[in-house]
Amino acid sequence: MAKRSSARQSGEDRLIARHFRPLARHPGAFGLADDAAILSPPPGHDVVLKTDAIIGGIHFFPDDPADAVARKALRVNLSDLAAKGAKPAGFLLSLALPKGVSDKWLKEFSRGLGEDAAFYECPLMGGDTDRTTGPVTIAIAAFGTLPTGTMVRRSGAKIGDRIVVSGTIGDAALGLKLRQMPAIAKRWKLGAAMCRHLSGRYLLPQPRNAAAEVVRAHASAAMDVSDGLAGDLAKLCDASGIAAEVAADRVPLSPAARAALAADRKLIEIILTGGDDYEIVATVAPDRLTALRAKAGAAGVTFTEIGVVKPGKGAHFRDGNGRQLSFAHASFSHF
Amino acid sequence: MAKRSSARQSGEDRLIARHFRPLARHPGAFGLADDAAILSPPPGHDVVLKTDAIIGGIHFFPDDPADAVARKALRVNLSDLAAKGAKPAGFLLSLALPKGVSDKWLKEFSRGLGEDAAFYECPLMGGDTDRTTGPVTIAIAAFGTLPTGTMVRRSGAKIGDRIVVSGTIGDAALGLKLRQMPAIAKRWKLGAAMCRHLSGRYLLPQPRNAAAEVVRAHASAAMDVSDGLAGDLAKLCDASGIAAEVAADRVPLSPAARAALAADRKLIEIILTGGDDYEIVATVAPDRLTALRAKAGAAGVTFTEIGVVKPGKGAHFRDGNGRQLSFAHASFSHF
Repeated sequence: MAKRSSARQSGEDRLIARHFRPLARHPGAFGLADDAAILSPPPGHDVVLKTDAIIGGIHFFPDDPADAVARKALRVNLSDLAAKGAKPAGFLLSLALPKGVSDKWLKEFSRGLGEDAAFYECPLMGGDTDRTTGPVTIAIAAFGTLPTGTMVRRSGAKIGDRIVVSGTIGDAALGLKLRQMPAIAKRWKLGAAMCRHLSGRYLLPQPRNAAAEVVRAHASAAMDVSDGLAGDLAKLCDASGIAAEVAADRVPLSPAARAALAADRKLIEIILTGGDDYEIVATVAPDRLTALRAKAGAAGVTFTEIGVVKPGKGAHFRDGNGRQLSFAHASFSHF
Repeated sequence: MAKRSSARQSGEDRLIARHFRPLARHPGAFGLADDAAILSPPPGHDVVLKTDAIIGGIHFFPDDPADAVARKALRVNLSDLAAKGAKPAGFLLSLALPKGVSDKWLKEFSRGLGEDAAFYECPLMGGDTDRTTGPVTIAIAAFGTLPTGTMVRRSGAKIGDRIVVSGTIGDAALGLKLRQMPAIAKRWKLGAAMCRHLSGRYLLPQPRNAAAEVVRAHASAAMDVSDGLAGDLAKLCDASGIAAEVAADRVPLSPAARAALAADRKLIEIILTGGDDYEIVATVAPDRLTALRAKAGAAGVTFTEIGVVKPGKGAHFRDGNGRQLSFAHASFSHF
């Protein structure tokens, strides 16, 4: 159902050779010149498997820079590996392109992908390129390794554990709003730099892979925050059979998010439920809290204590007066 | 950019719980209730990685039965694992759905996927579901295992090796033509049963996983035939630095393909270059040919000797009179 090539090397082969072969430096990728790749985990290690896709018009704007689109596609997967305590080992790329995607776009896409693959030490192992009548669709399957049986689960939280979250929450959700309605910056009383910070956090996740080993060594449970802190923490509670009590005013916010919230207190809901944070929420035994925070800090990742694990169900966020916040929408869903 | 859910369990969670959780029986899949899955290859084994996507209107017809779409999505990946000599270990599913896909469609899709996952012993390990404004897009990443360093490469063919191919070639390409132009059946002088055979081979690949261990033990090089025998064998030649001499009239054809070819000799080009065969083309040392054919036969897979490896470049197909066939289009390409 697609055009066919008369050359020995097809257009698809040329596209791969030009844009993606230079990225496939891992010996198990065979320079993308075979049908499959090889991953050899160290003895005594598990392979952690994750797939996440991003789609034009759904997860990114069609006019986002191509290199940022590629980075986001990889980073949303890297974020899961980080939260599970795994070291990145490689990824497979499935790329569906509509007609009209230019060679320049692909060049920028592969540049961004290659730079991130190098930075996060997560090489391209193989892939697949197809035509689509729909939007650009990028499905990545990412692989990590960790000592057998040590993946940090959602289900390990214990009563009395402290709840911590990395980085800052809500930036990306506010950044998306700003992207959709730039005029709202005025209502939120944000200057250009703060707007850029929030938009940048939506455009380009900052996965916390630097903290993966610390999370693996110290957290009792963890997951990445991608669909909103409130909803994701509720999932962790469900999996662990416990409740979370969170002090909403201890949730770490960037100066920009703090400024916006000061201008409009209702933004607390977007901040806590909006998603695209790509931070790590974890639970940690009280006697390990200091070590986790110190070692993650040394790796450049700040963890903030926001609450405590209690008996019961659900994730409960309370304001400074002890009143429980309620949200119309607990978390992001496509369906 | 998509709707958000007010329930504790989102629509996406419900969709996954209803249709896909029952398939995730592998302990490392954690019932799809964590963020990632675990694969533990046996000691001394490599993990073989492969991804391939299929897209509505490109790789399948939008009105194909949902269970067949799911099977095809998995089988095109299983076919690569088979050709590389790997035993299936599991897969990740990335599923992008347009609005209007019914619960009934998803039920049939997951039924077909689950039945194939069970039959091929390749369990669902995890996945991702998204909305798309485009067609149904299914990207699968499949994993196999094999003893370290024994993946059958494209690059191992030696001069003097025999060239073999499994099953029959050309059926799916003819089946696609029939699907696009049903009236052509009359010109090809095909009855209803033969038309059904060819259409069925397009709808539903029959990957040769039963022969994977035999291929691993005996083939010097192998790849799956997905983009046309002529083009794929040329790729194997390139990778191995040799030439292939193939007797076109020894290429195994089904009775239906043979009948169509008798009615129109020009169909030889579609047969040899059309693709979607999902057979295995392999090279094998002469003293291993009998063992490979016998053991594969015992596993239910017929390998036919079609040619020999010679010094030089490219895959050359000769007719019964020794004339070299030339093709306008050597193989399928999306670009």
